[in-house]
Amino acid sequence: MVTEVKEGYVKVEFHNGITTIEFFHPQSNCLPARLLEQLAHAIHGAGNDEHTKLVILRSAGEKVFCAGASFDELKAIKDKEQGLQFFSGFAHIINAIRTCPKFVIGRIQGKCVGGGVGLAAAVDYAIALDSVEIKLSELSVGLGPFVVGPAVERKIGLSGFSQLAIDASGWRNADWARRKGLFAELHPTAEFMDESIFRLSEALMHSSAEAMAELKKVLWKGTEHWDKLLIERAAISGKLVLSEFTKKAIEKFKIKGIKE
Amino acid sequence: MVTEVKEGYVKVEFHNGITTIEFFHPQSNCLPARLLEQLAHAIHGAGNDEHTKLVILRSAGEKVFCAGASFDELKAIKDKEQGLQFFSGFAHIINAIRTCPKFVIGRIQGKCVGGGVGLAAAVDYAIALDSVEIKLSELSVGLGPFVVGPAVERKIGLSGFSQLAIDASGWRNADWARRKGLFAELHPTAEFMDESIFRLSEALMHSSAEAMAELKKVLWKGTEHWDKLLIERAAISGKLVLSEFTKKAIEKFKIKGIKE
Amino acid sequence: MVTEVKEGYVKVEFHNGITTIEFFHPQSNCLPARLLEQLAHAIHGAGNDEHTKLVILRSAGEKVFCAGASFDELKAIKDKEQGLQFFSGFAHIINAIRTCPKFVIGRIQGKCVGGGVGLAAAVDYAIALDSVEIKLSELSVGLGPFVVGPAVERKIGLSGFSQLAIDASGWRNADWARRKGLFAELHPTAEFMDESIFRLSEALMHSSAEAMAELKKVLWKGTEHWDKLLIERAAISGKLVLSEFTKKAIEKFKIKGIKE
Repeated sequence: MVTEVKEGYVKVEFHNGITTIEFFHPQSNCLPARLLEQLAHAIHGAGNDEHTKLVILRSAGEKVFCAGASFDELKAIKDKEQGLQFFSGFAHIINAIRTCPKFVIGRIQGKCVGGGVGLAAAVDYAIALDSVEIKLSELSVGLGPFVVGPAVERKIGLSGFSQLAIDASGWRNADWARRKGLFAELHPTAEFMDESIFRLSEALMHSSAEAMAELKKVLWKGTEHWDKLLIERAAISGKLVLSEFTKKAIEKFKIKGIKE
Repeated sequence: MVTEVKEGYVKVEFHNGITTIEFFHPQSNCLPARLLEQLAHAIHGAGNDEHTKLVILRSAGEKVFCAGASFDELKAIKDKEQGLQFFSGFAHIINAIRTCPKFVIGRIQGKCVGGGVGLAAAVDYAIALDSVEIKLSELSVGLGPFVVGPAVERKIGLSGFSQLAIDASGWRNADWARRKGLFAELHPTAEFMDESIFRLSEALMHSSAEAMAELKKVLWKGTEHWDKLLIERAAISGKLVLSEFTKKAIEKFKIKGIKE
Repeated sequence: MVTEVKEGYVKVEFHNGITTIEFFHPQSNCLPARLLEQLAHAIHGAGNDEHTKLVILRSAGEKVFCAGASFDELKAIKDKEQGLQFFSGFAHIINAIRTCPKFVIGRIQGKCVGGGVGLAAAVDYAIALDSVEIKLSELSVGLGPFVVGPAVERKIGLSGFSQLAIDASGWRNADWARRKGLFAELHPTAEFMDESIFRLSEALMHSSAEAMAELKKVLWKGTEHWDKLLIERAAISGKLVLSEFTKKAIEKFKIKGIKE
């Protein structure tokens, strides 16, 4: 199933008990509202599908896993309500992964920026290339990593999250991210990475679905309030995005783009 | 005092203010119900003993610190009640360490598997050999690290715990465990390790018992609900262990054993 | 503004939106009650100052960032009330940093001992020299890191905090502290460190004050009870400091001093 949106797509494939969800956007895999919605929808679907035992989340392309929120859409936000709605898109994806009774493995082949770091943090087990770099750039554009914050802090701890969030223009390398706990494994090539994903998937396909569902619950214990919390966070970002400061910063940032 | 059970033993020795508790089982120091009970009892005893200022937990043998639950006993579990009771054995040990007003130092000379990782995580300060490897193998046999989970997550964080629990067939080395926080120190030989345990014990024997008891309380603050939580967790494992899946997986695992 | 106390000082300088707070004490930058009070006051002031966008906390001298509580004053404590009051000094500083709506960057040029580790942990972003060493020596003198504990644990986790607190005579090096999350960055020379502080300060001066205030709130979420908690902790230290054990240990420790 491929859901094409204006630009980019979310593709869902089912094979031998594994649902693979792939997203793509021509602007460095950034996420406009429609893709955010489709992603959350796809994850929900895989969670409810009785034949799916495992979910793999990946993106197309080689240089960037996900550049975060779409700057074109950020710029177009006119009022608090639109702001809340846009940022809730990330909340819905994270909550979809969180409440999905199956493990979600992340395949991180390239840079993660802003909300992209949030996606990488939200999956249950992230396998990445050792060339990956990450950045929580929100503060540079007058925003903050409010919606993705709980997911990032849950994985890399308060200290790592503080460092990323405050030093918003600094890239951290894959090794830093692995040491902090964002990535479970690093691999030198896509081939090795895919081999490792295959190995882990095989092992999990031979595991008890009931045991995995119980383990998933245990690993996310204490996040039951995120349904509400992440929407509250979306409201903070939705308000900040309206400021002159942010509008100008996004414009400047957009011109520079991500060095791929 | 040596409490011999059918196979294996729990040995308690008191010397100069230090109570050393050693366990042994011929099958890779795995723990049947009787040893679990004796261990919890020994730790409680040391906690209540007014002459004991410090507790050292160790196992006999060289290759394996603790292989976790006894597979023979897991296989023999017939109903939920028996399952709950067996897994509560680990809950009682962890809660005994937790509520013991003295520090418990762990001497980790070999592999830790499943519940064995839980023991290493539950002690207040673990000193290990740099050749040690650890694995949370529960998912491989249709179970999950439910009872020991809170102790492991408390020490190595949610991310490290997720990695160990999901990649259930992968050994992690001592350096990984040290970086994540499971081990406080690594040493190249048993001699160096014992020297370091001696050095730390000496320092603690010259410390204020009152200050140590207050510190112990502070370090375990927020775990007061574990009395109940770990038993709830034992019920999850006690239910999963009854499935056909688990029975078969344990049989297969048992034949392979731990490569020592 | 320089507030000189009997010995040592707290100096507050404002320049281009940045308030820099520097403290000094001739005994290895240890903190007597008056300096503790002045520091908390200075941080409060910077937090309330509408022209201040960023706070930098530093100390004078080269070898020691902060040696913790003043031993002279610890020795002079006569009853629980005085004890509570003295240790509350650290609580007030940590709570001042915590509630300050601006980020506090720490410049850590030398050793951190006891309460000094607490200060380094309480700042939002600590930049240190790679030659720095840290120690939570409280247990060695019959006390414990009770007041600073929540700040240290928040940054380096329960495991790192346990290690530091229990092995109270062991120095941990800067790399250990960085890996655990106490320091965000390490630099080989004061020049490089100051360059990095300048770079980060510049970036933050060009960031949205509103976004930073929201981010600060998010990063300290869940610590609202520290107002009360840290004072309770001060009471524990304030009681322990009265024991013969502690009086003697402080005397001995004082003679040895910090090897600078």
